[in-house]
Amino acid sequence: MSNGTQNHDQKGFVLWMTGLSGSGKTTIAMLLETELRNRGLKVERLDGDIVRQHLTRDLGFSKEDREKNIERVTFVAKLLSRNGVACICSFISPYQSIRDRVRAETTNFIEVFVDASLDAVIERDIKGLYKEALKGNIPNFTGISDPFEAPEDPDIHVRTDLQTPLESAGHILGELEDAGLIPLTVLD
Amino acid sequence: MSNGTQNHDQKGFVLWMTGLSGSGKTTIAMLLETELRNRGLKVERLDGDIVRQHLTRDLGFSKEDREKNIERVTFVAKLLSRNGVACICSFISPYQSIRDRVRAETTNFIEVFVDASLDAVIERDIKGLYKEALKGNIPNFTGISDPFEAPEDPDIHVRTDLQTPLESAGHILGELEDAGLIPLTVLD
Repeated sequence: MSNGTQNHDQKGFVLWMTGLSGSGKTTIAMLLETELRNRGLKVERLDGDIVRQHLTRDLGFSKEDREKNIERVTFVAKLLSRNGVACICSFISPYQSIRDRVRAETTNFIEVFVDASLDAVIERDIKGLYKEALKGNIPNFTGISDPFEAPEDPDIHVRTDLQTPLESAGHILGELEDAGLIPLTVLD
Repeated sequence: MSNGTQNHDQKGFVLWMTGLSGSGKTTIAMLLETELRNRGLKVERLDGDIVRQHLTRDLGFSKEDREKNIERVTFVAKLLSRNGVACICSFISPYQSIRDRVRAETTNFIEVFVDASLDAVIERDIKGLYKEALKGNIPNFTGISDPFEAPEDPDIHVRTDLQTPLESAGHILGELEDAGLIPLTVLD
């Protein structure tokens, strides 16, 4: 959060984290949010929990509702990114066509595949959701009763079953630096 | 629209135009959008037509749906204004309580009462909507079958039944300059 004043020569972009539930998207997104703020950048982080409070409370998890959810997020990410804000989005967003549409509509879209195998996320099952989904108690659960289309050609690929969240976040930061989207040092 | 790069020391704000259908909100908003862009500012304009395409396609005009509509717009305006973007919003937004909520959630909220009497907008009736509403063909039509709560204490008040749109826009610009929210000259 800022006071609404913009001082820096900052490029807007959309860092789009896609992956299975429990793959570590939000953990990595929060690490990146903190780091980018510490570097003096304007940052907004969007995820399912945040947008469902304000933007998409009416929606469920059918393919149609997922599309509408991402459509509204896309509108927000478009306005932020074209106005110089770093927009970190973490959404399962299981369909390639939908992710491609976000890319087409936003400025400097970067698709990040937050990749953990289905076995790995079932093994972890931090929220106990996979257990319930495997019992058939949660309809439209990505990876179990709904498809996950892995990115065909992601801009950044992190393996969260082999790396810690901090390692993954560090890798993504390096890529953003190399792309010239974030400064190497703290702005003042 | 910009290339996503932010160069200026710009204050974010939300210019919230409220008034009856046909009072001139969007005409004035478009004049202001052009002028602020010409001064080198980051600007986004939101109105019913724009957001209903991307954000609120599912909503009608009942009080409940109007609340949801403004709730989603508020989320967008909050993120833009706190990141240094001038956000020009034109919505009938007939309820004071809802406008007060937008004020509470956004940075540098300015309520602009775009004021034309009901007689004046019925007289103009550019889109022919009042004629239909008076026949009872449009439910929940503000001013006819639904209330319009005029702002109790607007930050800016323009009388579009006495002024041209350009005069009203000029008045608002002056107020924004006086408040220190926009520069007097073109930025480079």
